[in-house]
Amino acid sequence: MTVRVGLIGCGVMGTDHARILRREVAGARLVATYDADKSRAEAVARRADGARAFASARALIADPDVQAVIIASPDETHAELSIACIEAGKPALCEKPLASSLDDCRAVMAAEMKAGRRLIQVGFMRRFDPGYRAMKGKIGEAELGRPIFLHCVHRNAIAPSYITSDLVLANSAVHEFDISRFILDEEFASVTVISGKPTRNAETRRPQFVALESQSGIVVTIEVFLDAQYGYDVQAELVCENGTASLAPLRPLAERRAGRDGSAVESDWRQRFADAYRVQLQEWIAAIADGGAVGASAWDGYAASVTAAAALEARASGVKTKVAIGERPGFYV
Amino acid sequence: MTVRVGLIGCGVMGTDHARILRREVAGARLVATYDADKSRAEAVARRADGARAFASARALIADPDVQAVIIASPDETHAELSIACIEAGKPALCEKPLASSLDDCRAVMAAEMKAGRRLIQVGFMRRFDPGYRAMKGKIGEAELGRPIFLHCVHRNAIAPSYITSDLVLANSAVHEFDISRFILDEEFASVTVISGKPTRNAETRRPQFVALESQSGIVVTIEVFLDAQYGYDVQAELVCENGTASLAPLRPLAERRAGRDGSAVESDWRQRFADAYRVQLQEWIAAIADGGAVGASAWDGYAASVTAAAALEARASGVKTKVAIGERPGFYV
Amino acid sequence: MTVRVGLIGCGVMGTDHARILRREVAGARLVATYDADKSRAEAVARRADGARAFASARALIADPDVQAVIIASPDETHAELSIACIEAGKPALCEKPLASSLDDCRAVMAAEMKAGRRLIQVGFMRRFDPGYRAMKGKIGEAELGRPIFLHCVHRNAIAPSYITSDLVLANSAVHEFDISRFILDEEFASVTVISGKPTRNAETRRPQFVALESQSGIVVTIEVFLDAQYGYDVQAELVCENGTASLAPLRPLAERRAGRDGSAVESDWRQRFADAYRVQLQEWIAAIADGGAVGASAWDGYAASVTAAAALEARASGVKTKVAIGERPGFYV
Amino acid sequence: MTVRVGLIGCGVMGTDHARILRREVAGARLVATYDADKSRAEAVARRADGARAFASARALIADPDVQAVIIASPDETHAELSIACIEAGKPALCEKPLASSLDDCRAVMAAEMKAGRRLIQVGFMRRFDPGYRAMKGKIGEAELGRPIFLHCVHRNAIAPSYITSDLVLANSAVHEFDISRFILDEEFASVTVISGKPTRNAETRRPQFVALESQSGIVVTIEVFLDAQYGYDVQAELVCENGTASLAPLRPLAERRAGRDGSAVESDWRQRFADAYRVQLQEWIAAIADGGAVGASAWDGYAASVTAAAALEARASGVKTKVAIGERPGFYV
Repeated sequence: MTVRVGLIGCGVMGTDHARILRREVAGARLVATYDADKSRAEAVARRADGARAFASARALIADPDVQAVIIASPDETHAELSIACIEAGKPALCEKPLASSLDDCRAVMAAEMKAGRRLIQVGFMRRFDPGYRAMKGKIGEAELGRPIFLHCVHRNAIAPSYITSDLVLANSAVHEFDISRFILDEEFASVTVISGKPTRNAETRRPQFVALESQSGIVVTIEVFLDAQYGYDVQAELVCENGTASLAPLRPLAERRAGRDGSAVESDWRQRFADAYRVQLQEWIAAIADGGAVGASAWDGYAASVTAAAALEARASGVKTKVAIGERPGFYV
Repeated sequence: MTVRVGLIGCGVMGTDHARILRREVAGARLVATYDADKSRAEAVARRADGARAFASARALIADPDVQAVIIASPDETHAELSIACIEAGKPALCEKPLASSLDDCRAVMAAEMKAGRRLIQVGFMRRFDPGYRAMKGKIGEAELGRPIFLHCVHRNAIAPSYITSDLVLANSAVHEFDISRFILDEEFASVTVISGKPTRNAETRRPQFVALESQSGIVVTIEVFLDAQYGYDVQAELVCENGTASLAPLRPLAERRAGRDGSAVESDWRQRFADAYRVQLQEWIAAIADGGAVGASAWDGYAASVTAAAALEARASGVKTKVAIGERPGFYV
Repeated sequence: MTVRVGLIGCGVMGTDHARILRREVAGARLVATYDADKSRAEAVARRADGARAFASARALIADPDVQAVIIASPDETHAELSIACIEAGKPALCEKPLASSLDDCRAVMAAEMKAGRRLIQVGFMRRFDPGYRAMKGKIGEAELGRPIFLHCVHRNAIAPSYITSDLVLANSAVHEFDISRFILDEEFASVTVISGKPTRNAETRRPQFVALESQSGIVVTIEVFLDAQYGYDVQAELVCENGTASLAPLRPLAERRAGRDGSAVESDWRQRFADAYRVQLQEWIAAIADGGAVGASAWDGYAASVTAAAALEARASGVKTKVAIGERPGFYV
Repeated sequence: MTVRVGLIGCGVMGTDHARILRREVAGARLVATYDADKSRAEAVARRADGARAFASARALIADPDVQAVIIASPDETHAELSIACIEAGKPALCEKPLASSLDDCRAVMAAEMKAGRRLIQVGFMRRFDPGYRAMKGKIGEAELGRPIFLHCVHRNAIAPSYITSDLVLANSAVHEFDISRFILDEEFASVTVISGKPTRNAETRRPQFVALESQSGIVVTIEVFLDAQYGYDVQAELVCENGTASLAPLRPLAERRAGRDGSAVESDWRQRFADAYRVQLQEWIAAIADGGAVGASAWDGYAASVTAAAALEARASGVKTKVAIGERPGFYV
């Protein structure tokens, strides 16, 4: 069976998804595209021979030839489009965030629960990275034992100039919130934020240090620094009762030259998580073919957003702040 | 466009190819299988819905629904089946070795030259490994400069009991012969072999040390040891005028426990080269769709076999032995 | 010139100092020992041929044959003995902490300022570790640029049963407080502490997470975990404007066996910092011979203790707490 | 007890030994120096307060105040001076090589056997390197099991212009010959040499590849390359029945900057083996004080020279050559 996919949003991420789908994913075919800028939608459609550029996202979702949808349009459209897909009974892979407000997150969940089956996958691609997967696989093994705490580091070489200290938390730290929840399989109870020193490049690119406590008392510490200059660098170390598990760099070539040994650091997340993006799409397609669901659910998208909101509050207040996540609906267990 | 693939040989390697094709390769469909053991062919066909098990390899190759063929049957059938594919005008990915004799290698090349286009790709999958590719990419860059020598290490955890010291060279070292030629883009002029000490497990699993000189004088040293016990381990270090480039292990998780740090070593080549196998199939399919050719050619298959034959002779004689490769036909340049 | 050294306190640390002095330090001779348990003092004296065991610490300090003193007796005696050494005009290497109270720290500083020359070196041996020294050497170099933040990790395999959560901060984190000040050459302004989840082994061995802000706004994050089981592990990563510098493990042998690669993790600080202990003693002796001073001063000992006291308060209150260090006297600049 | 040491030869190595002895070695005092260039001898003597510069090496050896001698004079004087020390009954640490001819090596051994006690230690300092020591410690442990083969790599950044291809073997590979014998505790039976391609910098700096077979059949492969440009780099990997042990780099600081991670490679052997040089002197002094002997004996010096001579012959002939070491005298067992 071949899953016929429609793509909404043909910017950098959307174009990447289209390319991966066409060149590296089994069992899928890109049949429809939409972008507010029609020429972009047409360019992507042309490369995927046989695909049509649509005049509206709604039309694309409604088209009977489209079986599943990738939502890579601007953040503020995510919730509405997700709900449209749910109502059309079509699985959607929605780029993070799930929605721009917690209310909208709840609206998506309500729609999905009403539909009675999981249709929304939030594009937290790290859940498909081999390192994080191997780390999660260690949880519960006698070798390492019960988790005690988790350290996370998130560094970008250079942040776009529009990044504010709030966006550092909302856009970047949110990946750490999701992956920590994924690894630990727990919700957070509280969050504290400490802001570092401004860098020479911008007041707003100062590092942010986040400490979360999970409901069972596991501490997750997160550094987010978007002005690291030397490259894109994501680290994680899980400390358990008997030992630790850390992400190891996946750099296929080591060099020695000019008095130094070492290897090239990735320049951005698309390079660092190339395999995760590919596997995410592949498993999404395979799950659709099987009638199942994988990856981050709407609840996971909501939980990441709730945590980000609490972190913003904690940064503003300077004190430990409650993460008011509420009860997880049975539907999402 | 979807390439319709037939698989000849449904043993371990063939079954792996079928699985990868079905689950991870874009643009391909497995439509036909054949195996001397019919139940195996049927089992593989059943998993790829819509595929048919054929009664003979010839029938599979001849079938108009089959556009391209994977040859994963026993070594002694490779040449004959490759020629049949060439005569049918169908691209084939043939597991190494290309043939069981040098004469048969030459027969495949003759058939291909007669057909007038490259149809045979030999399954030297390492050419699609990200590490070797990055290493090759360094050749000619000013950073490292001209290559001076290359060290290769090839270790298996445990060799099957039928492995003889000759097979160590013919079956295992042959991967090193091919990848060294690929990296250096040169033919070998001579080969010397020194046999190590027998291991406690078997006389025949003693390590073999091979030193090759390329036509321009680059020395390639190779260790092949099929009783390493601790795991499957392939290493390569290219030394150039200004520095070196080495394969780095790709192990996504590092652990610290029980007084040690470290990570899990791969257990076999299917695990170590999983990505290379996937990319090999993907690029083969993409090349077919484009009407082009990638990977190791029949000439490359022949060159690896010539080198292996010279190495066997060198091991028997104990002295430096000429690699009588002859001139590369213009067709293969 | 040979410096004649007296040792006060012949427990584990004192005996180690005696051994290192005798076997690995140029220009020194152990001539006197004292311990509350006379047999221990005699045992150490016997091994250093020609040394005498004294009946009191005071007598040892007063003895004209003793030119310099190592204070490795119980913590509560440090201040008093340091002052005695100062009054005798004899340089002393005092194990950390400098004193058991901040008042006592101040008393030592007052005595030293009165004496008019630096006689006290506090045994923060990490300042002599090649890794930390190389890290400090990077500060101010254009390559890395201005420091932005610093991460520190301090793990013991197993803490003694008498360790309380307060002692985790006062005894262990204090090394991190000192070395951070050494690296950054700044005082701390505030401290926040978050306690992790208890481990199965003890409530009191729960990890402690400390975030300090320096007077210029550099954030130092510290994890202290004394129940890591797998070994003794100290990490540090300095993040600067252009890049980072981290301590690298100094493990001379890497092994591959039983499906894993890796190396042995140190079991305790005496093994991890063996070289630092040796160099500390060697440079102390060399400085005495030259009439100079090296290493952590009494002010540094005081600063570490002030920070520890603020951290205890921060742990109790759960909120960010001021580190009231006060002005550094000109004598210590 | 303090050992009073005389130094013969105040060039780079001799001056280094003097500095290490004075600043980092317990239990020794430099009391005498000699150099053909008197001003150099005086300069070194002046720094070691109380030392005298002698007018001849013989006078230094004869002086009753000198208890032990470091021979760091030109290679052709080693044998004669070693014999003079033996005849004076004074222990000597003689830089490698022991002698410039095999006959002279035998003369030193004859003198020592006549004297009836081990007085000569050859300065193969790597035997005191923590990595090689740890590797040797693995031999015979059940964990790794019986050794099967050993790979060695020896690279200098830039060789002096007077280096010939013969000197590459005689001066540099000789360190590998000694350390392999030390690790494996076996003599060599045969040697084969293959010369690599000339580098752009000099015909004579082409890499040399040496394969040795020990008397029990263990193969030792050695690469010696003195034009590596990027730094000084010594590697060793011991492969045993159950696993491997390799030297790990001892680089205390890792950096990430300008798109790369990594650390600084040592620039020469004095930096790489700084600790080995220190420990060598320290253990030599301690052994003298104890009346014992450590390190490489005259026999070891002879064995390294016999192997080097056979390697030169093998390089000239291009074929496998016997290492005619003969029987080890009982005195040296």
